[in-house]
Amino acid sequence: MKISVVGMGPGSEKKMTLEAMDALEECDAIAGYSVYVNLIKDRFPGKEIITTPMRREEERCRLAVEAALSGKHVVMVSSGDAGVYGMAALIYEVAQDYDPIEIQVVPGVTAACSGAALLGAPLTQDFAVISLSDLLTPWEKIEKRLSFAAQADFVLCLYNPASHLRPDYLQRACDILLRYQKPETVCGLVQNIGRPGERAQILTLEQLRNAEADMFTTVFVGSSTTRVVEGRMVTPRGYLQREGKEG
Amino acid sequence: MKISVVGMGPGSEKKMTLEAMDALEECDAIAGYSVYVNLIKDRFPGKEIITTPMRREEERCRLAVEAALSGKHVVMVSSGDAGVYGMAALIYEVAQDYDPIEIQVVPGVTAACSGAALLGAPLTQDFAVISLSDLLTPWEKIEKRLSFAAQADFVLCLYNPASHLRPDYLQRACDILLRYQKPETVCGLVQNIGRPGERAQILTLEQLRNAEADMFTTVFVGSSTTRVVEGRMVTPRGYLQREGKEG
Repeated sequence: MKISVVGMGPGSEKKMTLEAMDALEECDAIAGYSVYVNLIKDRFPGKEIITTPMRREEERCRLAVEAALSGKHVVMVSSGDAGVYGMAALIYEVAQDYDPIEIQVVPGVTAACSGAALLGAPLTQDFAVISLSDLLTPWEKIEKRLSFAAQADFVLCLYNPASHLRPDYLQRACDILLRYQKPETVCGLVQNIGRPGERAQILTLEQLRNAEADMFTTVFVGSSTTRVVEGRMVTPRGYLQREGKEG
Repeated sequence: MKISVVGMGPGSEKKMTLEAMDALEECDAIAGYSVYVNLIKDRFPGKEIITTPMRREEERCRLAVEAALSGKHVVMVSSGDAGVYGMAALIYEVAQDYDPIEIQVVPGVTAACSGAALLGAPLTQDFAVISLSDLLTPWEKIEKRLSFAAQADFVLCLYNPASHLRPDYLQRACDILLRYQKPETVCGLVQNIGRPGERAQILTLEQLRNAEADMFTTVFVGSSTTRVVEGRMVTPRGYLQREGKEG
């Protein structure tokens, strides 16, 4: 019948939208990465469950499309927003091989926004979102993006900053940024947003270079105007500065 | 008592998070830009209303902080996410002039995510968010960011692409991007997300240069890998391409 690609937000149910909740309640089947689906399946009993492990994304999307073609309303869940490094694009790509089917993307709160909220207000100016995972993007392209983003003076939000297979990627990224940005640039690191073990830390770019990060970490690197205000990471929008007042 | 800076999402109540809804139901006072507060105040009756018009943002934040210091739970609303060009940073800045107060940011669905969902899946690769408003950022800095972002091959999401005071800013931005990107680059334009008059349109960068945009428009410019899939704007994450299949 149709596929709803649903962003579940950062973890806790309270950060889901009403529309995402409705889709999960109304659907016939819930599809997704097994770890995420297991977190929510008891909350929505009586649904068919379609899961595959990590690295089996194409198969997962094919199973979801085939279930929808058989007449079911399938919700494909992604953590955060379904369109930011989520399954939305792959669902459209895979759907090309089948009869036409209705696809709807239900947006959610991505980690850039939920992480920023924990740190203060780092994204109140122009920003860039970069994944440090080189599973699907060549590392040279990631390096190039880091370098241009630093020169553009964007606030940066880094997804997938490290994993056990690439423990030094955050360090390598910081080394590139340090060519253009001051070592004392205000940075932030959040872990397990909306989940047990939630933690937010403010540190300098130099300290970030040696910080511990994992798959559940999101990293923020300030621009030249980001600073610590009331103990939080804040990039002023410019309202007070416009009036000549010190913000 | 405290201030919750709440992102209301793109317009319709269904795109609000449960946490945002709870904050609006529980609070004593709702503060915000008069146009947005008027849209929701009947839905949450019995609340004190604190509004100021556009360009009176500092005053609005001071009134909210003062109400919170008098013992109230104040919700300061922003459309989209409160941290993305929203009021969160200014609340922290203004709070420095007063006794300590609890500030909480409740994240929401920003227009980059809700607009992307309407267009398809343009943000499944690294992206940058740039506001074309030069009220608070010099135009030269905006131009520089556009130029570096295009060289970085980011997908771009442009907020505030035009207003009646600056009808040609989107055209000027496209002219900068066209130095680095092909005229046939896949672009998208969304208007009135989650509101009456909602509209999504896919067009080329060359067509975007001459498109009509207003304050309620969000613009997306694809990267070198963005294309039209199933009639939607899609930036493949790279799953199918990794396996040597044509996505």
